[in-house]
Amino acid sequence: MATRREQTSHESSERILAAAAELFAAKGYRQTTFADVAERSGISRGSIPWHFGSKEGLLLAVLERSVQLMSADLAEPGEAEAPEVGFDRLVEGAQAMLEAPTTKLFVTLLVEALEPGSPIHGRYVEIHETLRGHCRRWLERLPLPPGLSAEMLAVAISGAMIGIHQQWLLAPDRIDPKGALVALRAMVASVVRSTEDRA
Amino acid sequence: MATRREQTSHESSERILAAAAELFAAKGYRQTTFADVAERSGISRGSIPWHFGSKEGLLLAVLERSVQLMSADLAEPGEAEAPEVGFDRLVEGAQAMLEAPTTKLFVTLLVEALEPGSPIHGRYVEIHETLRGHCRRWLERLPLPPGLSAEMLAVAISGAMIGIHQQWLLAPDRIDPKGALVALRAMVASVVRSTEDRA
Repeated sequence: MATRREQTSHESSERILAAAAELFAAKGYRQTTFADVAERSGISRGSIPWHFGSKEGLLLAVLERSVQLMSADLAEPGEAEAPEVGFDRLVEGAQAMLEAPTTKLFVTLLVEALEPGSPIHGRYVEIHETLRGHCRRWLERLPLPPGLSAEMLAVAISGAMIGIHQQWLLAPDRIDPKGALVALRAMVASVVRSTEDRA
Repeated sequence: MATRREQTSHESSERILAAAAELFAAKGYRQTTFADVAERSGISRGSIPWHFGSKEGLLLAVLERSVQLMSADLAEPGEAEAPEVGFDRLVEGAQAMLEAPTTKLFVTLLVEALEPGSPIHGRYVEIHETLRGHCRRWLERLPLPPGLSAEMLAVAISGAMIGIHQQWLLAPDRIDPKGALVALRAMVASVVRSTEDRA
């Protein structure tokens, strides 16, 4: 069982992480200072390095927490489930992910990840790989048309999820992300159905 | 006919724009200074504001130039063309766009565009709208399944182009963007074909 002191420390970490995630999403990583994080979290500025070492350490921890939240939205296909059900759950997961406030963070941090020698580059590649892996695992259970692999489709489908989100972030009053996911689902369903018809 | 002096001025502007586009893409807008642009372009630091006013003016001009380059890649569907040909040309355009060095700039500047009150926000919304408009115009010429509009599909397809590009930028040795575009093309073709079969 955690001691009282450990629990307080854990709560402080969580508050720092939540505040930093909001600030990185709102004003970017570089423009955010320890003083900003202290002000928003209500935790003293001096104790932030004690929890996370450097600002880079804080960035990595924020990213880690966001990946956990994202993975919770993307359920794995169940063994007993019909492929279409798994597919619907993936689309629902994408929907939940689109609406999560932390998702904006992935866009804000993308530029950091693209910097040469960025500390989060590798982690970012893994995040995209997680998304593609989810797509691939249920695609592998479906009949695919000749010439198309689960990997090719997974890059296109993950790409659509990423790009739908960004269009909507930029113009929330013009873009209907739910409608776009319905279109994506229809496209995938028909490419799979076309294979079944042929068989 | 342009005078010698006007021509020299135009050439200087072009060199400044090309240098700024490379620097914004490589190190981001905020980290780039007039001194960096002067060094890379070989144009004196003092004459940059003469051409573009402020750094913000330079940013807007760089974005404008990139939009022109992007639009040149995305051909409009010809009236006399079969819809599939227009579609293939769109995919080819997307391919050319993916490979263009300036396209990375759109990712780097996306974060700037998402800032509240950003001077490039409106222009960025238009860029996405240009991409969606291209998709929509050839989708409108095709039979679509009930419940799916050209707009819904345009957001999903533009999204896929944006997202495929970003996955590839982040992990060029893992991602095959051509394969993903083949998958995207197959998905759109089959959703259209499924409607034709039904008719």
